[in-house]
Amino acid sequence: MAQLRMALAQVNCTVGDLAGNAELIVAWSRRAAEAGAHLVVFPEMALTGYPVEDLALRESFTDASKAALDGLAGRLAEAGCGELACYVGYLDRDAEGTRDAAAVLHGGAVVARQFKHHLPNYGVFDERRYFKAGHTLDILRINGLEVGMVICEDIWQVGGPVAALGKAGVDLVVSPNASPYERRKDDVRMGLVAARAREARAPLAYVNMIGGQDELVFDGDSIVVAEDGTLLARAPQFVEHLLLLDLDLPGGAPRGEEPVDGFTVRRQVLSEAVPAYPARHPRNITEPLSDEAEEWAALVTCLRDYAHKNGFRSAVLGLSGGIDSAVCAALAVDALGAGAVHGVSMPSVYSSEHSRSDAAELADRTGLNYSVQPIEKLVAAFVDQLGLTGLAEENVQARCRGMTLMALSNQDGHLVLATGNKTELAVGYSTIYGDAVGGFAPIKDVLKTRVWELARWRNAEAERRGEQPPIPESSITKPPSAELRPGQLDTDSLPDYKLLDDVLDDYIEGDRGYADLLAAGFEPELIQRVLRMVDRAEFKRRQYPPGTKVTFKAFGRDRRLPITNTWREGVPQTT
Amino acid sequence: MAQLRMALAQVNCTVGDLAGNAELIVAWSRRAAEAGAHLVVFPEMALTGYPVEDLALRESFTDASKAALDGLAGRLAEAGCGELACYVGYLDRDAEGTRDAAAVLHGGAVVARQFKHHLPNYGVFDERRYFKAGHTLDILRINGLEVGMVICEDIWQVGGPVAALGKAGVDLVVSPNASPYERRKDDVRMGLVAARAREARAPLAYVNMIGGQDELVFDGDSIVVAEDGTLLARAPQFVEHLLLLDLDLPGGAPRGEEPVDGFTVRRQVLSEAVPAYPARHPRNITEPLSDEAEEWAALVTCLRDYAHKNGFRSAVLGLSGGIDSAVCAALAVDALGAGAVHGVSMPSVYSSEHSRSDAAELADRTGLNYSVQPIEKLVAAFVDQLGLTGLAEENVQARCRGMTLMALSNQDGHLVLATGNKTELAVGYSTIYGDAVGGFAPIKDVLKTRVWELARWRNAEAERRGEQPPIPESSITKPPSAELRPGQLDTDSLPDYKLLDDVLDDYIEGDRGYADLLAAGFEPELIQRVLRMVDRAEFKRRQYPPGTKVTFKAFGRDRRLPITNTWREGVPQTT
Repeated sequence: MAQLRMALAQVNCTVGDLAGNAELIVAWSRRAAEAGAHLVVFPEMALTGYPVEDLALRESFTDASKAALDGLAGRLAEAGCGELACYVGYLDRDAEGTRDAAAVLHGGAVVARQFKHHLPNYGVFDERRYFKAGHTLDILRINGLEVGMVICEDIWQVGGPVAALGKAGVDLVVSPNASPYERRKDDVRMGLVAARAREARAPLAYVNMIGGQDELVFDGDSIVVAEDGTLLARAPQFVEHLLLLDLDLPGGAPRGEEPVDGFTVRRQVLSEAVPAYPARHPRNITEPLSDEAEEWAALVTCLRDYAHKNGFRSAVLGLSGGIDSAVCAALAVDALGAGAVHGVSMPSVYSSEHSRSDAAELADRTGLNYSVQPIEKLVAAFVDQLGLTGLAEENVQARCRGMTLMALSNQDGHLVLATGNKTELAVGYSTIYGDAVGGFAPIKDVLKTRVWELARWRNAEAERRGEQPPIPESSITKPPSAELRPGQLDTDSLPDYKLLDDVLDDYIEGDRGYADLLAAGFEPELIQRVLRMVDRAEFKRRQYPPGTKVTFKAFGRDRRLPITNTWREGVPQTT
Repeated sequence: MAQLRMALAQVNCTVGDLAGNAELIVAWSRRAAEAGAHLVVFPEMALTGYPVEDLALRESFTDASKAALDGLAGRLAEAGCGELACYVGYLDRDAEGTRDAAAVLHGGAVVARQFKHHLPNYGVFDERRYFKAGHTLDILRINGLEVGMVICEDIWQVGGPVAALGKAGVDLVVSPNASPYERRKDDVRMGLVAARAREARAPLAYVNMIGGQDELVFDGDSIVVAEDGTLLARAPQFVEHLLLLDLDLPGGAPRGEEPVDGFTVRRQVLSEAVPAYPARHPRNITEPLSDEAEEWAALVTCLRDYAHKNGFRSAVLGLSGGIDSAVCAALAVDALGAGAVHGVSMPSVYSSEHSRSDAAELADRTGLNYSVQPIEKLVAAFVDQLGLTGLAEENVQARCRGMTLMALSNQDGHLVLATGNKTELAVGYSTIYGDAVGGFAPIKDVLKTRVWELARWRNAEAERRGEQPPIPESSITKPPSAELRPGQLDTDSLPDYKLLDDVLDDYIEGDRGYADLLAAGFEPELIQRVLRMVDRAEFKRRQYPPGTKVTFKAFGRDRRLPITNTWREGVPQTT
């Protein structure tokens, strides 16, 4: 038997910040070393941040990443972490191409490098645009245990590199990841990691990044499972954390270096078994968050990181009294603190009394900075000069609000938040350059019915904690209205939200066509009406601000459709 | 010897319009049949349009494409084209995956299908996201000649499928393409096609699409080269055209079906040699356009197709009197006709007299619809109510103009054109939701110095034709100014445009880092200043309208950089 104290460092890296990320790695490695760990694993591309997108094509950046890795090896030794085997994800480049790589730093040097084998090129991923696949398996003997590694997508492959490690013979597999959050993805991952551990015939340690990067948010949720798939340890979600675990494994002599399944196997010895010591970190399992808590944390984390990593300390948003702006305000307060959030009520002649009072109540409940800017005179200037009526008049109201927020942003340096939800964005029920104005759109990927669910959950959570619920009850219960003309209701222009969201879920997340939607029981007229709205609104989505991806298929890089596109589901095309 | 009359149909397809594209294919096939052609070749994905992006992931669409192809085979026979071998690009799907495919339709049936072998996944292309590669070479005997085919990217491969066809033995190679225009790409293509013909040891017929699809524009420029690379025929650029060519080739007996270089070879006989007939279409070579004429045609075509394919018959734009809006107006007039273009002068208190008179003169010269909407009162409403000064006040002027154009669009259904150039977009010298407002941005990928060159070329071209030059001389010669404060000039905030564009060209198109830029002779301060502006403006580019790609690397899907990105070229990052 051989003992090993392992540390999984789920940290919050920033794309491009080689120096800052290196400092983060040193700081967390010191914590691992101080805790007596023999091995610490950081996420995929921890040194560069992930995804770096087209920075991967720039030679100056790949060179800088390699230089930073070499520098980091020295810094770690200076910081007293030389004895620690430190697994760090970074960007590499060799004669064959650019690589998504992980290195092992030990004793002031880079002692091993392995390149990712499977390169995802679907959904939000474009890795075949950037990277060449690796074909080596680098196995290090640490404390007398043979430790293999695989990067991210490699653990999604049945019979892939993990199975090859199993055939080659390993005592432990570690896996650096940068796996973006999606609703319920943690359940999928758990089964996956357990299946791979059985293939490897060894425990598997899965380390994921945390934090927001543009539209992606990483949830952490790092786990270790035993050889039989039993959960041994799990880190909390959406926070930086060092997950420590003491392992006591059978071990054995170093095994051979014969190629397996087309992979070159390379082994080297870092250290043999250490004298017995008392285990201090047995199973350490954090319970996962509920679905709503997890999604709320994802939205808060991504908003906070977008703001802070881009140099914003405060945010401004319009408060209409409706549910969308109320939820965005509550998210912003949780992300940035009430003192950094500026809510502006911008009533028009069509605004109801309850709109104003609900907005004011929201401000009271959350403690955000509240102001009122009536838009009547601004709107009148345009309507009078240009003789606007109908839709043009409605849109000018939304645009005067957008301009007001942008002016306040220009004056005071706030990040403007666009408060639209996924349902509106899907059907184009928003005014481009009006309510669509903003640097970030916190609930862009949340369907309207889910916005209500999250609002209720957040209020209940506050009550559970003995705090004031942030969202006015009336904002949750009243019928939604854009209030751009007298007595207007969303249901004048849109189907009932429950029904609408069901269609959207099937059409957007499921990518189902007309026949499938019919078979799912929707009326032909409803399908055609909704799909037509979705298809025609593509141009608006292209100019919409970024916002947190929380579903399987978010608008943005996840769903890439042409603007110029006359394909209409269910509309006969006869040839 | 065996004779063959070949037709290359470079047509303008629309993405998603299966019925319309099929009608187009029938109409051009009839013209080919009436001209006595034995074989007609349409572009890559002619039936679906190209690129279909994520429509390729939707089963209902791939099924519809396959059904449309079967229907088309029957329609062609009914239309009297049954004897013609008709090569049509389409979208296929089989048990292995989705395919970028070409089929041969003959005698009312689909007689052969071949899948693209090489799938580009760089620049604007994401084909590995969608397609599985093929591994067959389908060779048809037509008029006693063995005719092979390869799709687009396959002809960019040295020693690839074309070389394999050469080894298998063919008398002719045809190649359907959808190759987007880029400045000077036609010169590259010519050499490429000639090199492939030599590899195939047979003439090669290259057929390219024409027309605009969102940010891409296809230039046609279809060519046929002889076995030794000699040019035999070339079609005009940017227009639909049927290029006819009579060939008289050695031919020979059908050759074997042994696999070559990993490809399965499949042969079938459609027709043996026909009795001798008089050649009517010997070498038919259109001279290529000059660099400026070609680029102007690309910009006009893409703007026209974006408007028309999206249902717009008219456009509106702001006329500042400056060079950018003047060039956009001239492009719009060439694309849509003067009667469909609405130019609006929107003077503020800071607008000079020459701005107004230059705008009016442009309207006079081009005959577009001209109106004046002073923005003083609109701006005053915001400035007074919100107490705006400095940048906030400058931006409100640009945004009042944007709102005015959007209001006119809402009232009258015009497409709004954003008039910014690539230099402005690169350094963020534009106001988001202000001058950045629009459905399409005609000169988004044209650097400022090139805007001047194109303006001079267009005026000279008019003089050459004995027409009125559209662009006022003073718009070309005066120093550029945004006129957002008294006496403002672009050079107050930006380096000289010649120098700036040189740096941008190296940094953006060349993807060069700091050391390379230094080596190119730029001053350190200039490099850091320009690169910092470019990097910080990424958020503005994300919300900018689409516009025609004309360079090697356009903003948009071509250059994918994170917004959240602290990497700064030339700023030391110490670890």
